[in-house]
Order: sequence, then C-alpha cells, then structure tokens
Amino acid sequence: MKIVKLNDVPTSEINMDGVKNLVKQIPIGSMDGSPHFSFRVFTIGKDGHTPYHSHPYEHLNYIISGKGAIKKSDNEEIAIETGYFSLILADEMHQYVNKSNEPLVVICAVPKEKE
Amino acid sequence: MKIVKLNDVPTSEINMDGVKNLVKQIPIGSMDGSPHFSFRVFTIGKDGHTPYHSHPYEHLNYIISGKGAIKKSDNEEIAIETGYFSLILADEMHQYVNKSNEPLVVICAVPKEKE
Repeated sequence: MKIVKLNDVPTSEINMDGVKNLVKQIPIGSMDGSPHFSFRVFTIGKDGHTPYHSHPYEHLNYIISGKGAIKKSDNEEIAIETGYFSLILADEMHQYVNKSNEPLVVICAVPKEKE
Repeated sequence: MKIVKLNDVPTSEINMDGVKNLVKQIPIGSMDGSPHFSFRVFTIGKDGHTPYHSHPYEHLNYIISGKGAIKKSDNEEIAIETGYFSLILADEMHQYVNKSNEPLVVICAVPKEKE
C-alpha cells in the first residue's frame, strides 16, 4: 500500500516539441509496484499545453483543477474544467490546453510501461 | 474519445455487507471501450464506509474531496483528504472511512473486468 499527497510527489519539467509550461509527477507508478497502470499528474501552467499528438495506447484522465480544452482536430475542441473525466483511446489525436490564468491539473492514467 | 462531467454520470447505491452510505459511478469503463482500466467514483456519505476487505487485484485511488482514513488493520489507519493518492495492492486489507460531515469522494481505478 502506498499513500501520498500530491504536494509531496517530486516534479519534473517536460521539455519537448509542442509542449509549453508542463510539469509532470508520478504519484503512483511502476516504482511503487503498481502491476498494470500508473497515475501521472500533469500541471499545465498559464498559456501552456501538452503536445498535439496521438500514440498507440489509451489514457484515462481526471481534471483535478483549472479550466481548459481538449483539442480533437484543427477545428474542434471541447471545453473541460474541474470535475471532468476523459478517455483518450489509442491513435486519437488530442491536446490539453490551459485556457485560464490558473494551472490546469490533470490526472493521466496510462499502462505502466508508458509512464 | 469520451469527455464527461462527474455530475452527469449515473449513480447507483451500493448495498452489501460491511458497506454504509456508499454511492458508485463509472465515468470511464468497459461500456466506453476502455481497453484495460475503468475509473469508478465512490461517494461515501457521513458516517459511511466501504467494506473492510481484500481482493485479488489492485486499485489506484485519488481523493477528489473530503476527509477520512484508510483502515489497514484492526489497529492502524492512515488519514487521507483531498489531494491524496493511494495504491492498494492485491490481497491487502483496506477500508475507506469517512471522518467528516461532508462526503468523501474517491476515484477508484480497477482492471475493467472488476469495474
């Protein structure tokens, strides 16, 4: 059993193409012996976003706090905020975009091999 | 892709031995085509609790809101509140107990076969 507060989980800044103002934490992952899935948390700062991309595995998301959107295509985005869940299936294009002055904080659960 | 607000997800009351004031929702699950894992949400009302039990699969939890404890054994419980994560491994005894007058709302991610 592991019990941890988000504030006590180490943070790492993500620097890659298509990313802006993105910090990652792994409150539950393979290091903890989680057999199948990992819970990552992404904090997307003001004006920040994840890459607009797809990948061959799904993720399950929960919006801990903030306001933003999920970009699905060049002409479609869906508004999200605190209390929303999303399921992004394998090979679906997606991007999380912060749309407020406060951080957009998102749980992103993935197969542990992809954490 | 599925995007849903927790308030829009159907609720069902759980009545089983060892349970008190417990409501379940499945914002992301096998019905949505989630390939491996499901996100369930349990709302534990005032004086409520989940069963004190174990099972042969893990779950990954996030405390959306409230204050309570995880009972690990007859003489050990760990305080939890909004913003905590927990990993309950297969066969570990555990019980979520509400310790405040407000609901204790918990994401509980499990293999989809166990949703």
